[in-house]
Amino acid sequence: MADDRNRIKLAISMGDPAGIGPEIVLKALQHAEVYDTCEPIVFGDSDVMREIADRLGYQVAFKEWSPKLSDVGICSSGADTVMVRQATHADLKSVKLGELSAQAGKASAESVISGAKAVSSGDADALVTAPINKEAIALGGYPYAGHTELLAEITGAKVYGMLLLAGNLRVIHVSTHVSLIDAIKRVKTPRIIECIRLGHDACVQLSILNPRVAVAGLNPHASEHGLFGSEETREIEPAVAEAKSLGIDASGPHAPDTVFARTLAGEFDLVVAMYHDQGHIPVKLFGIDNGVNVSVGMPIIRVSVDHGTAFDIAGTGSASDKSMLEAIRIACIMVKARRTVSRQ
Amino acid sequence: MADDRNRIKLAISMGDPAGIGPEIVLKALQHAEVYDTCEPIVFGDSDVMREIADRLGYQVAFKEWSPKLSDVGICSSGADTVMVRQATHADLKSVKLGELSAQAGKASAESVISGAKAVSSGDADALVTAPINKEAIALGGYPYAGHTELLAEITGAKVYGMLLLAGNLRVIHVSTHVSLIDAIKRVKTPRIIECIRLGHDACVQLSILNPRVAVAGLNPHASEHGLFGSEETREIEPAVAEAKSLGIDASGPHAPDTVFARTLAGEFDLVVAMYHDQGHIPVKLFGIDNGVNVSVGMPIIRVSVDHGTAFDIAGTGSASDKSMLEAIRIACIMVKARRTVSRQ
Repeated sequence: MADDRNRIKLAISMGDPAGIGPEIVLKALQHAEVYDTCEPIVFGDSDVMREIADRLGYQVAFKEWSPKLSDVGICSSGADTVMVRQATHADLKSVKLGELSAQAGKASAESVISGAKAVSSGDADALVTAPINKEAIALGGYPYAGHTELLAEITGAKVYGMLLLAGNLRVIHVSTHVSLIDAIKRVKTPRIIECIRLGHDACVQLSILNPRVAVAGLNPHASEHGLFGSEETREIEPAVAEAKSLGIDASGPHAPDTVFARTLAGEFDLVVAMYHDQGHIPVKLFGIDNGVNVSVGMPIIRVSVDHGTAFDIAGTGSASDKSMLEAIRIACIMVKARRTVSRQ
Repeated sequence: MADDRNRIKLAISMGDPAGIGPEIVLKALQHAEVYDTCEPIVFGDSDVMREIADRLGYQVAFKEWSPKLSDVGICSSGADTVMVRQATHADLKSVKLGELSAQAGKASAESVISGAKAVSSGDADALVTAPINKEAIALGGYPYAGHTELLAEITGAKVYGMLLLAGNLRVIHVSTHVSLIDAIKRVKTPRIIECIRLGHDACVQLSILNPRVAVAGLNPHASEHGLFGSEETREIEPAVAEAKSLGIDASGPHAPDTVFARTLAGEFDLVVAMYHDQGHIPVKLFGIDNGVNVSVGMPIIRVSVDHGTAFDIAGTGSASDKSMLEAIRIACIMVKARRTVSRQ
């Protein structure tokens, strides 16, 4: 197994060392089946990872990774040896579990940047990210709203977004972290078309060849033909029509309160949600443990867990690795799909 | 069993005869266990019910009900005999299944009115309603937005609302059928307090003695202390404070995307939702078959199925009676709780 050079090389950033990131990464890498499909490489700090292993009582060796090691096929030896790429020189000795700190923020941002660069250069196939803290990375000198904005800058992506996955529920949002009143203002035909296209392309990257895209309405019952609200007729219907003319199997606007249940029942592959909570409420209900986020519109494949650093339980050993395992699984699916396309 | 005069007398309105109402009522009344706790009486039209029985191939007799029959204890003989109260003189011969009609609308409104009056007068203990069609009742001379408005007029209720139930998820809404932009305008302290109180009282009626009331935010992450949106600090926090001062175990504003999962996990008994889809998305996901609505703030107990007339499948025999059975079960719980209180 160790000499299979076609195996997927997965860069996994460790996340904020004061949070649950390093713990869920290490827990996930103790599942032997992970090594059947990929070669995981932790981008972060080997001391942090070793400390977590000691705390959890895992018998595991850490080995410094370099692209050359993978090239000669001596990487990824299985759950007893974890490859680590030293991605930061931040001074992490004073970092306390569960506490916000500039050094932890610096280390977590540098781990993401290093991992993303490895993917961009071809040394790795995809990036999987553990949670970082917005305030900590800002303190550490990286004032970004989150992973997505940081990665957009590194990769030069201009039109990008995020696809949320929870089982067979896939959701892309017209807007996210803005007030509801501002979210309504952003329900505009060009942005909806952009989301339909980004979401469609992401589904294709996930091996769904002709995705059925359901576009949600904004108002209750999608306004019942204008009875309460005009955004459906004014902004959403033209976007659906335009998407159809581009050959996308788009439909809607659908009543927001039933479109997610219909999608879960198999009627659609993707929902375009008009605002943060319209899509996040169903995703959080079904992905409480195994939800993941996929970056769309970027030149690199990147999958993230859908939870935060959980400072309140950091170091207790109680964090679940389910979302991390799902992120690894989805990243591998996307790499395989990309390889299939490039062979055609 | 038939001479137990303490059994709960349940008035069940048959709904629009062109829809699935009569079918789900009859199907529900074929479950023998229904008769263990209550005496169901169908308010509607006996010819409509007989036709449905013939179509479904049920061997069932229909018997004209009058309050006197219950008084002398010869009512409710079990699944083989269904009691019907003739509640309408509408001419239903020309009504076609699946088609909107004035006569069907008239019959469905009159069935509700007759059932509600029986409960008001004490001839029955609670009202359970099958679905009606807004357009049909208007055509039939009853221009109401729905059951709630019709019942408010009959009972003289001034401050009322609706509680949605799906398993252990209970939700009350600050607003429902208005555009999202209007819904934001309705997020005002007095209305939120009203909803907290109505919801609290409804939970008590449902035998939850000190309900834990979670008030949702309006904006993503409940605005993260004003980062995106001011309604949380301006309108919602004062309402929660006021409710607490009234002795209600209220909390919030909570992040809308996680409060429903937390409620399902048992942390709260009720969520006060700020707008239609915030509450309807989770309820429809979990109550696709067994969701029910409970009227709150009315002098009579009334429970409804949470689906519509489903004209598209009327007469096919494929309608599910799960929501109707759940409505019957919930109505019985509420009658028992009320009897316990009046005995104290």
